[in-house]
Amino acid sequence: MEYGHRQALTDDERIGWLRLIRSENVGPVTFWHLLQHFGSAADALDALPELSRRGGRSKPVRIASVAAAEAEIGAARKAGARLVAAQEPDYPWRLATTEDAPPLVALAGDAALGNVPVVAIVGARNASSNGRRIARTIAQKLGEAGVVVASGLARGIDAAAHTGSLETGTIAVIAGGIDVCYPPEHDELMQDIARRGAILAEQPVGTKPQGRHFPRRNRIISGIASGVLVVEAATRSGSLITARCAGEQGRDVFAVPGSPLDPRCAGANGLLRDGAILTESADDILQVLQPGLRDAPGRASPAPVAQELPVESPPPEAPLEMADTVIADARRSLTDYLSPAPTSVDDLVREFGDDLATVAAALLELELAGKVERHPGNRVALIAA
Amino acid sequence: MEYGHRQALTDDERIGWLRLIRSENVGPVTFWHLLQHFGSAADALDALPELSRRGGRSKPVRIASVAAAEAEIGAARKAGARLVAAQEPDYPWRLATTEDAPPLVALAGDAALGNVPVVAIVGARNASSNGRRIARTIAQKLGEAGVVVASGLARGIDAAAHTGSLETGTIAVIAGGIDVCYPPEHDELMQDIARRGAILAEQPVGTKPQGRHFPRRNRIISGIASGVLVVEAATRSGSLITARCAGEQGRDVFAVPGSPLDPRCAGANGLLRDGAILTESADDILQVLQPGLRDAPGRASPAPVAQELPVESPPPEAPLEMADTVIADARRSLTDYLSPAPTSVDDLVREFGDDLATVAAALLELELAGKVERHPGNRVALIAA
Repeated sequence: MEYGHRQALTDDERIGWLRLIRSENVGPVTFWHLLQHFGSAADALDALPELSRRGGRSKPVRIASVAAAEAEIGAARKAGARLVAAQEPDYPWRLATTEDAPPLVALAGDAALGNVPVVAIVGARNASSNGRRIARTIAQKLGEAGVVVASGLARGIDAAAHTGSLETGTIAVIAGGIDVCYPPEHDELMQDIARRGAILAEQPVGTKPQGRHFPRRNRIISGIASGVLVVEAATRSGSLITARCAGEQGRDVFAVPGSPLDPRCAGANGLLRDGAILTESADDILQVLQPGLRDAPGRASPAPVAQELPVESPPPEAPLEMADTVIADARRSLTDYLSPAPTSVDDLVREFGDDLATVAAALLELELAGKVERHPGNRVALIAA
Repeated sequence: MEYGHRQALTDDERIGWLRLIRSENVGPVTFWHLLQHFGSAADALDALPELSRRGGRSKPVRIASVAAAEAEIGAARKAGARLVAAQEPDYPWRLATTEDAPPLVALAGDAALGNVPVVAIVGARNASSNGRRIARTIAQKLGEAGVVVASGLARGIDAAAHTGSLETGTIAVIAGGIDVCYPPEHDELMQDIARRGAILAEQPVGTKPQGRHFPRRNRIISGIASGVLVVEAATRSGSLITARCAGEQGRDVFAVPGSPLDPRCAGANGLLRDGAILTESADDILQVLQPGLRDAPGRASPAPVAQELPVESPPPEAPLEMADTVIADARRSLTDYLSPAPTSVDDLVREFGDDLATVAAALLELELAGKVERHPGNRVALIAA
């Protein structure tokens, strides 16, 4: 199996990938580390019990079965969707370049939409009529300029953004499973989007969305886009999480200004204060993105994006083959040093003078043992016992 | 007479200054050049006929009489005001540091207000109720923090800014003479400000404000302030002229964001796009200005500001004493080279390889002859014949 360019998985590979990402303590970042270390999902699955034991786990780590993976693939198909892997041509190419890209996403509708220029529009659920009008108009104008609009199917700004771009191309990224509509009153809109646009979901088919799923979903909204526009957003709102993800992923952040007397504008005004690009119309976005948009792979001419994918050929010396004692030492040092406050992996490497491979191997074992968790920005934290 | 520090003019000097600035073709920049070249207004007045003749003027330049100057001083007094010169302690010290500071301003009310921290608040005459509320609240909060608020006595935002700061200190800079209220319905507000705040006017007593007076007035609003806040302003509005002056004078520019759907917000949003400081409350202004405000001369402890005043001792060799032929050559070159589009004086010096003194002397003669006019930013233009 080659990871260097975009090609379809075999059925067996897809089942291996799905089992690995659905196994206990395996998140996207861990998934990519395992795949890099072992060269295939199947070999990583074989190594999971031993790795988690070395990380200090006493009871066996729960590994997703072949039957469960096949059942999920079947359920997705029944829901009119399919599970697309990050190295496959139908996977949104920009999302594949993020450090914690979902290994697989459930996709319903037109897969090509994720591989043309995409701009995300997000904002308040309790948006004003003016805010919704701005979102709808900008979505429409972006669509007329050949840009696909992504959003989160929420009430308010999200719904306005989807509605404005339904004719030209819209992607809804949802927090639950691909077959679960939230909020329920957007059932018809979701069906329209599945038919004319595209829907993406990271969580397993059938998952009811819970609070923790929404920030995970937000990183996908920004991840598939070249830029994120925030139309109305209160302080401490989900839209600001999306904007922060966008910044971390190197996406442009755009914000529509609003009156200081309207609390719904405080978040967007705060983004402007922090350097977001002031946006009054679609032109403000197009002027910034146009050169970059031309470079993106389009429907007509898919460009090679291999070098940007997080998946690469396994390194010549797989780090997990290094002396167990070296990794065990690093593991002990890390357990002592880490705290529930996220610490940068780069700092850890500097702190211990160890090579990155040793630290990475030790962290992987601790993660699989459920002792350490990943945070955005290549940071890790101890899970409080 | 010494120009290096702030001290009162004698009665004769004040009459000399007033005659010079009220004479034909003498604007503020020309006034300061003349004063620097000749050391006193009286000597400059004596030189005016010859200078304007050399600049190519055939009929005699109109020089303001002693009687006219005395009449204006009397009329100001009758209107409850007095004419304060730029080197005098009661002249707003920040205004005195600008390149085209009015040599004299008519001042009614509390002169001390111009020498404590000042922030200008300007905006649309047809402001929204929300915009007026923001202006009034910010003016009030600035006042509570010890900052005097300046504005232009116009309808809308200006009136709200004055009203909000009437208790704590407000300065109205008006476009016409000190005794002419515009708009007429602000007569009562103007009287309140004269009683409890201060009013400044550059134009001669009795002048009805005309279109060209407003941009001149706007540079004084920004000139007396440490920063200018634009609350609501359409594109191509007077408030944006004030903001541009503020930028040229090195003042901070603040702007309140607003909805893209409201044309009254387009100007302020445009300023934010160009780097103005996003402002939702008085705190946003105070945070930026506070360190600088502490350095400004206050009521309690007037600081020496002499080094910042545009007026300095005459140079050892007065440039107008240089060989007439050298200046005549420069004058001819400049007349050929200049056009009605403003050109930077620095560029002229580079272009001709002449020293600044020669170019300045030639320009002065051309100005007094009515052939060249000054523009902001040390630029000059030919007056179309």
